[in-house]
This record gives sequence, C-alpha cells and structure tokens, in this order.
Amino acid sequence: MDESKLAITYELIKTCKQSGARLGRVHTPHGVIETPAFMPVGTQATVKTMSPEELKQMDAHIILSNTYHLFIRPGHEIVKKAGGLHKFMNWDRPILTDSGGFQVFSLSNMRKIKEEGVEFRSHLNGDKLFLSPEKAMEIQNALGSDIMMAFDECAPYPAEYDYVKKSLERTTRWAERCLESHARPQDQGLFAIVQGGMFEDLRRQSATELTSMDFPGYAIGGLSVGEPKDMMYNVLECTVPLLPAGKPRYLMGVGSPDALIDGAIRGIDMFDCVLPTRIARNGTTMTSSGRLVIRNAKYAEDFGPLDPECSCYTCKNYSRAYIRHLIKAEETFGIRLTTIHNLHFLLQLMRDVRQAIMEDRLLDFRETFFAQYGLFENTKGF
Amino acid sequence: MDESKLAITYELIKTCKQSGARLGRVHTPHGVIETPAFMPVGTQATVKTMSPEELKQMDAHIILSNTYHLFIRPGHEIVKKAGGLHKFMNWDRPILTDSGGFQVFSLSNMRKIKEEGVEFRSHLNGDKLFLSPEKAMEIQNALGSDIMMAFDECAPYPAEYDYVKKSLERTTRWAERCLESHARPQDQGLFAIVQGGMFEDLRRQSATELTSMDFPGYAIGGLSVGEPKDMMYNVLECTVPLLPAGKPRYLMGVGSPDALIDGAIRGIDMFDCVLPTRIARNGTTMTSSGRLVIRNAKYAEDFGPLDPECSCYTCKNYSRAYIRHLIKAEETFGIRLTTIHNLHFLLQLMRDVRQAIMEDRLLDFRETFFAQYGLFENTKGF
Repeated sequence: MDESKLAITYELIKTCKQSGARLGRVHTPHGVIETPAFMPVGTQATVKTMSPEELKQMDAHIILSNTYHLFIRPGHEIVKKAGGLHKFMNWDRPILTDSGGFQVFSLSNMRKIKEEGVEFRSHLNGDKLFLSPEKAMEIQNALGSDIMMAFDECAPYPAEYDYVKKSLERTTRWAERCLESHARPQDQGLFAIVQGGMFEDLRRQSATELTSMDFPGYAIGGLSVGEPKDMMYNVLECTVPLLPAGKPRYLMGVGSPDALIDGAIRGIDMFDCVLPTRIARNGTTMTSSGRLVIRNAKYAEDFGPLDPECSCYTCKNYSRAYIRHLIKAEETFGIRLTTIHNLHFLLQLMRDVRQAIMEDRLLDFRETFFAQYGLFENTKGF
Repeated sequence: MDESKLAITYELIKTCKQSGARLGRVHTPHGVIETPAFMPVGTQATVKTMSPEELKQMDAHIILSNTYHLFIRPGHEIVKKAGGLHKFMNWDRPILTDSGGFQVFSLSNMRKIKEEGVEFRSHLNGDKLFLSPEKAMEIQNALGSDIMMAFDECAPYPAEYDYVKKSLERTTRWAERCLESHARPQDQGLFAIVQGGMFEDLRRQSATELTSMDFPGYAIGGLSVGEPKDMMYNVLECTVPLLPAGKPRYLMGVGSPDALIDGAIRGIDMFDCVLPTRIARNGTTMTSSGRLVIRNAKYAEDFGPLDPECSCYTCKNYSRAYIRHLIKAEETFGIRLTTIHNLHFLLQLMRDVRQAIMEDRLLDFRETFFAQYGLFENTKGF
C-alpha cells in the first residue's frame, strides 16, 4: 500500500537511550501530533468548559470525542450535515473518536452482547439502540474524525480467563468487520484495540491477531479499569513489543501524571483521560508539588498562584483565594480556571517528557518529577 | 469643592436634538465609561461564565458587583487583603458596587428594618447579619469599587403611600449617614438612590432631598419591580428633570433592549441588569429580530448563526444547531456562547444608541429597532 495515501502515518524521531521511550509525530489530515501526546477529552463535541481557542493557547494538538454520546445526541447525521465534527465544534486540529464500545459497557444498562453487535438502552431516555462494528464505522465516518477506533468489547476487571478469551476473539472478528466497512480510509485512519484483560497470553493473542491485519495504529484497551498500576505496566510490557514499530500506540483512558511518564517509558505514544477536566470541576488541581484541593480552608487568604512553577493563564492572573471563592460559590469561571490549569499541566508535562526523550534523560526526569510530585495509588484515584 | 479631586465626574458631550437623550462620559479612577452605558452584572466577583478578557473583547466599559454577596462570601476583608476587588478578580476597568440594600430585601427573609439598619439572615447559611449605612460604606470602601451606592430601602410594588413615604425619608437619612461615613471620597464616588415608589410627589420629595446633598451621581431605584413599563417611564419623566445635569444618572435593574432605549430617551446615562446573563443560561437569546429560544426543535438542523446581523464571537464561529446541542447537553461552553452573544447584543445596542444621539436621530433609531425587534411586556418578562 502506498503510504503517502494513508490518512494516518507515524514518524519516529528518536528513541530515548536511557528509557526506551519514543519521540515521534503522528501525521493526520488536520495536522501533526507531537508524541508522546495527551489528548483532552471532549465527550459531547466540547472539552468541558473550554473554547477551541483556549485549547490552542495551551497547545493541545488533538482532542478526543465520544461516538456513543454524539450518536445519542445530537445524532451523527446532524453532525454530518453541519460539515463534520471539526466544523460543527469549530476545531480545525486533529480529532480522535472512540468507538462507543466502552460507553455501551460502562454507561448503559440492559445491554445484550451478540456476535452481530450490542443492544443497549440510551442512558438519557432509555431508548433501545444498537451498535455494531458496521454502525460504529458509519457514525465515525459521518463525524469525520482523523482517527477512528474499532468497535470492541472492554472486558470488566476482574473477569474470568474464559470470558476474556471469548471476548477478545470477538473483538478481533469485530475489528475485521470494522476494517471492511470503513468507508473513508483515505480521509480517516482506523485504529484497532488490543484487549485480553490482565492475562499476558491473551494480550499476546489479541495483539498478534490484530497486527496481522493492516491498521494504521493500535490502541491498548481494557486497562485503568480498577487494576493495580503494576498489573497495568506488566500488560504494557508484554503487549507493546508485539505492536509494529512504524505505527502509533495509544493507551486508552490513562491520564494521571505518573502513568503518563511510566506509559511513555513503556513505548506508548498517545493517551487520553477525563481525569484533568473531571477533577477540575470539583476544584482538585494538579500542581508541581502534587494534588491541591482548592476548597480547603487554608487557601481562603492565600493570594499566591495555584502553582508557582506554572505559566498557564490561571496561574499568571488569579490567586488561590479567588479560585477557591469561585469554586465554593459554584461559579462557572472557577471551573474554567481549574480546567485550564489541569490541562495545561498535563500538556506541559508531555512537552517536558518529549524534551527529556530528545535528550536521553527520561528516567532522570521521572525520578525528579516523582520526588517532587508524589505517586498516586491508581489512575482513577488521583 | 475642586472638581479635579472628585473620584467621579460627568462630561456631557451633547444632547440629542431629536430625543433629548444625553451622550457623555463618566470619568473614574479606572478609566472612562461612554454613556449611555449598560453594565454587565458580576454578582460574586465574576460576570457569570465570562473571563475579564472576554468582557474587554466585547468592550464592556464597566461592570457591577454585589456588596451583599461579597460581604457574605468570601467576605470584604479577604477582598481587601487581596488588594481590592479589581485585583481580586483581575479586572482593571471601572467597577460599580451596589449597597446590598436591594438584596437584603429580595434575597433574605427574617429581616428587621430599624432606623439603625437592617437585621437579616444570610441566604446561604441562615447566619444573623446586620447592614447599615456605615457598614455598607465599610464594605464598599474595602472592595474599592470606583462607584459606590448609598444604602437604601427598595420599597416593594405595590406599596401603600404612607409606607413608601416613611421609607424614602429613612433612605434620605441613611444617604446622609453614608456620605458622612464614606472613608475614601478621593478614590471612590458615592451615588445616592432616589426612591418613592410609583408616587410622583414622593419621587420629587426624594430627588429634592438627595440633591440637596452633594453626591457625584444619582441613581433611580425601586423601578422594574413588577410595575407596567408606562408607570416606570412616568416616574422617570417626573424624576430625571430634578437631577443635576452635571452628574450621571443611573437607572437600576433595567436591561431589556426596549427599556434601554426608552430610558436613554428620558435622560438616563447608566443601566444594569442580570437579564442578558440570566436568560443566556437558559438558552434564551436576544437577536436583531427579537427573542430566540435556542432549545426549540426547529433549530436542531439550523446551521446559520444565532443572529445573522451580529458580529460577536459566537455568531462568527458557531451555528444554532451546535449551540442548541450544547445547551441541551448542559455543557458549560453553550452558556458561555449565549452569554457572550447577549452581552455583546446589549453593548452593541448601546454603541448604536450613542451613535444615534451623536447624529440627533435616536427617535428614528428607536422606531426602526422596535419595528424589527418587537417590544416586551415588561423588563422582567423578557
């Protein structure tokens, strides 16, 4: 296949001699993503509280949006009529859409999994709906994202070996059907999702099956679902080496600062997570000295910035006392300020990680960062 | 008194030969307000959903903030320690603070009005609190607003003649106490508030009593409290001529587009109202062809701007379909977009009004605007 015709290509710039992490670029129809990259999540065609200009100001290269949510509201046909998701939401940089698979399993009850696809009820109004590999492709083709994800089943944790094996094999068959029904391979790149739970041999089976098909990128799904972090890193260590070096690798749903560093060290190029935006809405912030809960009374008369080492809009212009006041008063501008800060924090962290890879010192960077920042028990528990 | 030492001065540029409306400038320690002016309301030290930069981008010259709310949370002492309200909220243009009087009467229950002041309970936690002319001055001196308001009683509508008369006379005595206890007259200008309900002779009494004292500006309070608009205009017509021509006149709590025009025609220089920001949060917008409720199903596939005649950020970049989606999905960015639009609409309207005064054609402008826009039954019922 002529690589120049592919929607998505990966360019390896260099590998960190100290850590093995990769510095690279993902080329997409809407521009370049410097990797390792963190992708802010814009579930409903908006990164909660943010404008596109604010995301650009903090130099987000790509955002993620959710197929399940847009399918339910406003409906992919409306987004298509608007000229696609980029135009609909006024974002002209790359967009990745997930497949809806994860949300069908995490948000909807009354789901029935069949070989054909999944029957489920809308979490909004209870309507009976159906998603399948073909439908997930139809929706994502209508949305027009740069990177689409194959429709998969994310097995729960913990789960029985036999269930996980059957599930990953179905995910492989579904990936094949996605590849066949994808209508716009010149415009949109389709990534497959490696499953297999916490079982090393099943991860190897899934990776082997999926890489035998020609996807322009591979994701690792089914992690950060409640397992200990060591278990997650074990899975990465047995899975990543099986993925093709010439294609991007995306670890789904991971966004705690320490896991971004430890994921990059294990060869991951892309990450996404609602963590920075979700905790921001509750007034929890990430700073260079660790977690800071701005509601705490001790910040009532603290007129310094959230993070003295940070150069974001929030830290340049507002005090902890003011942000605390806004959050306690339930003012929207307060969650705008904490969201800007948290996203900037992770995007700056990824810039620092890329610089450290360039200079072959990512393990040193990790040590310094962890000493100052501390470690969190697991990615969900920030 | 040497006028150059006054915190607030009014400069009359010209009077509209067609309508009698005034074009002017209010000079304040934080800059000039072109009048007639609409002041966006920033109740809790933030104009809901907006950043200071966004307010500047739409060329807001001044904002209003609420003494009652800031007294209760975070407390004026904290704002003072932060360096004053301008620094606390990162707004370097003029600020007007109200006196807390209106909120004590509208938000708090269990209030006891005495000559000394008003005992009331916090609407947040029920704490027993006390506001008086002296306390209202202490709070506003701590906040450091450019324009402070005297502590008044806003009589309800309808109300008995005798009650309104006693109330306005107390408001006069309170105004005198405010003038005496105002600690920073070189830095902050104190406006008195004319009361008197819907009774012409009481309005005249209040205006006469208050103008016998030397305030740098006068407000008309107790209007837009549920009375018919004609009644409000009658009150303006008997009150405004009694106010000194060399000082600004501020009509409190009025912000429907038609009332801004009809107020300016009656000689008003300044207005404020939560209307544009409050209705925006429910998805109701002001457009050149009248009210537009973006939740309506007919906008689901409408890819045009909210108002084709508008040049605001929202109308330049987003469709009705997208804004409808965001509002229905309860996304913050949706109310940011409708808030930007509504505030821009009123600020643009005031620019148009000022231009029409300059060109002696405000009555013509009124006729064209009303024909296109329609009239609303009363200011609260937009």
